[in-house]
Amino acid sequence: MKRLALALIVLQCFAVSGSAQEPGDFRPASTNVWDAQYPRVDGKGRVEIRLRAPEATSVRVNFWSGPKVDLVKQPDGVWRVVTEPLVPGLHYYTLIVNGVEMADPGSRAFFGGGKYASAVEVPEPGSTYYLPQDVPHGQVREVWYFSKVTGTWRHALVYTPPGYDEKPAERYPVLYLQHGGGEDETGWVRQGHANFILDNLIASGKAKPMLVVMAYGYARRAGQPAPDLAGRPLGSPEFRKSIQEMMAAFEAEVTEVLIPFIDKTFRTIPDRDHRAMAGLSMGGMQTYHITLNHLDLFSYIGGFSGAAGGFGRDLDLKTDFNGVFADPAAFAKKVRLLWLGVGTAEPEGMREGIRRLHRALTEAGIAHVYQESEGTDHEWQTWRRNLNDFAARLFK
Amino acid sequence: MKRLALALIVLQCFAVSGSAQEPGDFRPASTNVWDAQYPRVDGKGRVEIRLRAPEATSVRVNFWSGPKVDLVKQPDGVWRVVTEPLVPGLHYYTLIVNGVEMADPGSRAFFGGGKYASAVEVPEPGSTYYLPQDVPHGQVREVWYFSKVTGTWRHALVYTPPGYDEKPAERYPVLYLQHGGGEDETGWVRQGHANFILDNLIASGKAKPMLVVMAYGYARRAGQPAPDLAGRPLGSPEFRKSIQEMMAAFEAEVTEVLIPFIDKTFRTIPDRDHRAMAGLSMGGMQTYHITLNHLDLFSYIGGFSGAAGGFGRDLDLKTDFNGVFADPAAFAKKVRLLWLGVGTAEPEGMREGIRRLHRALTEAGIAHVYQESEGTDHEWQTWRRNLNDFAARLFK
Repeated sequence: MKRLALALIVLQCFAVSGSAQEPGDFRPASTNVWDAQYPRVDGKGRVEIRLRAPEATSVRVNFWSGPKVDLVKQPDGVWRVVTEPLVPGLHYYTLIVNGVEMADPGSRAFFGGGKYASAVEVPEPGSTYYLPQDVPHGQVREVWYFSKVTGTWRHALVYTPPGYDEKPAERYPVLYLQHGGGEDETGWVRQGHANFILDNLIASGKAKPMLVVMAYGYARRAGQPAPDLAGRPLGSPEFRKSIQEMMAAFEAEVTEVLIPFIDKTFRTIPDRDHRAMAGLSMGGMQTYHITLNHLDLFSYIGGFSGAAGGFGRDLDLKTDFNGVFADPAAFAKKVRLLWLGVGTAEPEGMREGIRRLHRALTEAGIAHVYQESEGTDHEWQTWRRNLNDFAARLFK
Repeated sequence: MKRLALALIVLQCFAVSGSAQEPGDFRPASTNVWDAQYPRVDGKGRVEIRLRAPEATSVRVNFWSGPKVDLVKQPDGVWRVVTEPLVPGLHYYTLIVNGVEMADPGSRAFFGGGKYASAVEVPEPGSTYYLPQDVPHGQVREVWYFSKVTGTWRHALVYTPPGYDEKPAERYPVLYLQHGGGEDETGWVRQGHANFILDNLIASGKAKPMLVVMAYGYARRAGQPAPDLAGRPLGSPEFRKSIQEMMAAFEAEVTEVLIPFIDKTFRTIPDRDHRAMAGLSMGGMQTYHITLNHLDLFSYIGGFSGAAGGFGRDLDLKTDFNGVFADPAAFAKKVRLLWLGVGTAEPEGMREGIRRLHRALTEAGIAHVYQESEGTDHEWQTWRRNLNDFAARLFK
């Protein structure tokens, strides 16, 4: 009965490639689907990509923050390339086959760049803080809630620390942690390993047990149509207006719907002293916007590779956010932690913008923590390191 | 600062296509990524697919249980097709561009067929049992545990019913629910909407509150190398041996590791009267294998489009599973529910195999429930209906 169909499916899950092994220490990437032999990574961080495409006339790999190189067709119709060494971390990529961008079937799919992309994990030698260890593990809970702001069902992930179920009288502080532009609420767990970072920090006593709420970072007011931005230049009023509307809708969503829902659903300590927010890139911009407009709700702020001034401009420390930065002593009383960081290998515009913010805050006497992640790009290894440092400083 | 990068990312998330709208009631599929306008579905179940691929010379859509049709290139480089009406449900598909199979960038990615595929949801008119409703919602919890059987970290999803956190003294029965071949532990939530089905059943009083454990259905004993099946025919001893090894390893994983982990981690009622197992297709085969070999652990059994006899053969009611079917009265005492079903539009081999099982059980006097899902294929609408009926019969 249904022998063939079943067999084919099972075979797909078991079959290994018959191709000759590459000499050296290449191993299938930890980000691959079950038993996929490619992509492979070696100890130097070089990545070997293969794709069977006998009819194609060009295949290119496009690492978003790395090399864009052509694969070479082999006589058996399999295209192949070995990249130069990549820095440690999770690298998004796509394959471009005769001009069409696609995911690599050997890779798990990660939501980034507004689509499901491939990624390859290049291990950081000797580093285990973001990997599952033999320590107590928290859970990541999927929750669904209806938002009166957006008029839709929304989905969020919530990390609960080890022991949450066993101590039903205990209440916990909360970190709201946002993904970047083009990513979604799954990014901090799937790509970032936020749950393992917290598990390890809590097990070693470096961080307090806390909840981590990872929300879907896009929002549009109920009834508001999608903006038609086709053909509009980036700096155009229509474009800026659409960004401002998204920022305002998400601010309302977080402060009027998400926080009350979390405080009702989980055993939180529902006050500003026990509430933090951080985010990466676009999520960093959202974090500054929401926390600095709602210091009644938040007292810890983290911007990971994120712009504080908003879209396309530096922060104005005199006037932005109702002048909250104008009085450093008052700011330090209200904000228990302002944390910012950037990777040294990030594109110059991003790196220098955050360095300018750090210098401006320093000159203005605003207490803050600033860290550069050595050698990492606008990618997840930067943000894993950021979270590992930031979370250890919270709620103390 | 980093204006361009951010703008491009945000633009990707907001931009709508400038293409002219198709007349009729086509709407973007509910399975699309944020704001993707294609694929679209109309009220008849017709699906419109579009792909921009100016350099391609052939683009074909491959619905796994539906039409395989060529897209037609438009002057602007966008390829387009409208399918015939599809039956309601979630339909996996891929695009084949110049011979290379790829996911549709407009669709969310669903793990099926051993890779991340696209899918389009065709709504079932008037049917809401598998959709989020204004009722209390359970949570779906991601858990990680180390398995001594496989020597690896494993990931499972666990549905906890509404009220689980609020009633810390209450204990719950457990349904173990398995995905099909080529799918993974996320299938029953992402594709199947098992959580919404349970939410709705529980809210209407049709099902008892229960936990639902969805495990990763592949296993290999620690230290056991992946079988090299390249070039081996399906019926070959090597192929059969690899299937048997996977079945045995998964049986050990479930009975020796997963069940003890769940009973330790959640407030279960840890006995056979309060433990069920069901699965679809390959998961149905695994369910029969595990439950019938461990009737000390399970008393409810569900096979959704699943083979009972194992790989490529019918069940032998006299001898299989140590002759458990030989005495119908003894069987009925031990097994409180044996449930099987199949979709009437499934391929003939699958449909007839399960009909034969139903007839053989009937002739042998083995009490069981048998249901055919009218008009649905070897796809998720069949299994959603199966779960909706099966779960309502459990633990009563």
